Amino acid sequence: MDALVVGIDLGGSKMLATVYCGAKALGSAKRTTDPTAGARGLATGLVGTVRAAMEAAVVKGSAVGAIGIGAPGPLDARRGTLTGSPNLGVADFPIRDCLQDAFGVPVVVENDVSAGTYGEHRFGAARGRRHVVGVFPGTGIGGGLVLDGRLYRGANGNAGELGHMIMQLDGPLCGCGQYGCLEALASRSAIARDLIAQAAIGKAPAVTAKAGTDVRAVRSRMIARVLAAGEQPGVELLERAAERLGIGIANCVNLLNPEMVVLGGGLVEKLGDWLIERAADSMRRHALPSLAEGVEVVAATLGDDAVVRGAAALAQESLARESPA
Amino acid sequence: MDALVVGIDLGGSKMLATVYCGAKALGSAKRTTDPTAGARGLATGLVGTVRAAMEAAVVKGSAVGAIGIGAPGPLDARRGTLTGSPNLGVADFPIRDCLQDAFGVPVVVENDVSAGTYGEHRFGAARGRRHVVGVFPGTGIGGGLVLDGRLYRGANGNAGELGHMIMQLDGPLCGCGQYGCLEALASRSAIARDLIAQAAIGKAPAVTAKAGTDVRAVRSRMIARVLAAGEQPGVELLERAAERLGIGIANCVNLLNPEMVVLGGGLVEKLGDWLIERAADSMRRHALPSLAEGVEVVAATLGDDAVVRGAAALAQESLARESPA
Repeated sequence: MDALVVGIDLGGSKMLATVYCGAKALGSAKRTTDPTAGARGLATGLVGTVRAAMEAAVVKGSAVGAIGIGAPGPLDARRGTLTGSPNLGVADFPIRDCLQDAFGVPVVVENDVSAGTYGEHRFGAARGRRHVVGVFPGTGIGGGLVLDGRLYRGANGNAGELGHMIMQLDGPLCGCGQYGCLEALASRSAIARDLIAQAAIGKAPAVTAKAGTDVRAVRSRMIARVLAAGEQPGVELLERAAERLGIGIANCVNLLNPEMVVLGGGLVEKLGDWLIERAADSMRRHALPSLAEGVEVVAATLGDDAVVRGAAALAQESLARESPA
Repeated sequence: MDALVVGIDLGGSKMLATVYCGAKALGSAKRTTDPTAGARGLATGLVGTVRAAMEAAVVKGSAVGAIGIGAPGPLDARRGTLTGSPNLGVADFPIRDCLQDAFGVPVVVENDVSAGTYGEHRFGAARGRRHVVGVFPGTGIGGGLVLDGRLYRGANGNAGELGHMIMQLDGPLCGCGQYGCLEALASRSAIARDLIAQAAIGKAPAVTAKAGTDVRAVRSRMIARVLAAGEQPGVELLERAAERLGIGIANCVNLLNPEMVVLGGGLVEKLGDWLIERAADSMRRHALPSLAEGVEVVAATLGDDAVVRGAAALAQESLARESPA
């Protein structure tokens, strides 16, 4: 019988833990993340969420063989620490030791987008594909890589940062401090920045009605409404963002020669086929024909479960490697 | 004892074959490639070069266990064909069948830059490094990837095309038809284009003296002379190209989290540390700090032998996989 494992998705606003037996979820727990609580608060919250998931699953801690966690990067995979996570309010947080000390089992620490991409590879849109690029546009644009059928982590667990690919020399300022990153051209934040610039000069009534001119108030749902209303110049901004997202994907296709690109996250869920078709079309026009040919561009299917499922699968595989019975 | 293998480097101007016993070269042969000779001429040339290398090595064909070849892409790794190689004057050339029929041994077909990067990984600058990006600026900019200690090929053998990463929306036209590819910003051809534009208005005497205003006459040696003479605005153009090469490398570092970047090819050999230091510095300023940190940027050390050695090693490994005795 498979050992039980726990998958965790640690995000800036909530943490989710689920106990799995194989691919079957036995019980879950969800808590709010408090970025002001510091390292001790985060540790308490994490351990409490895992215990609550075990209770929901009606299993004892001793039945759990391993824990996998997806967390925002950057991380140091060798030491099992989150090296600097402003969204979580901690720096150099020893997340592996924290969970290992509490539960006495091996802990796999993974970048959240990598874990989500791996989840889609094992259980979702990319099942059976050996070469997959995951692209998750949101506040930023995260990426994950499955290469030769395995999650690719890179030298210290931080591979996949396609959001900071510089695509426009001297382009718009990115949150990372560079100019012209993909993230500054095609993330939800980049779209919000441009919509609000339009709102500020009275050209985006559908946005202004909900968000005023507050860039942080622009949500994916609101962006979808601009599209549904056909409100110009908002729709033009969205088309431009989709085009550029496709160029970023083309750059990844040229470098990695994948079979499939999986697009996920809130913005993709809200804009759906409209965004996916435009991004795919742009990718095909901008990648080398020999590489673009045959690449499937699809929507993620696991939604909020992708990270926990991927993290749990990675935990399970680490057990299988340790005891190949 | 290791079986003998042959490594081949098939280029647009010459083809080189070397017979190896383990890492020891027993004999080589080199011939000119004739891009006007068509598929039959190419096949005859290849087979003849391999036979000549066997003669030089004083070995019988029956002693050779496998052949590895590095050839310009794009290729179809599954079918073992070069799908379209304008430099070689062939399209859809069945290179694997051609060599397999002539010598009756397994043949590994690889992109030349990938084979060269693998050569550097096994025997050159990147020995012992598990995560390596190879960058070879020349007429174009080729790339090769060693990920998790293995050559990464992608879905159909064409991974590594970092030269066609779009880095400047609406930038200069690239040979591939896109605008603003790394290759159009930092290859020898891109530098030549800009130097000749200067020469045409009388601002590049060191270039004009040798090349007139003929862009195809600009060689790496001539570019090195502009640098040595400190001739402006040529040096400024070179600095800009190095800066942009570094940005392209930063994009790869962000995506792949390598330990090492190996720079090779004629331009790198001629400009040496000047180019490597500037590209490395630019990479460190443009990649995410957590990813840039600790990445070594070094010069390739195998020169013209990188591709044959890498291709031979891949052939040897394919034998080892087939008969794990």
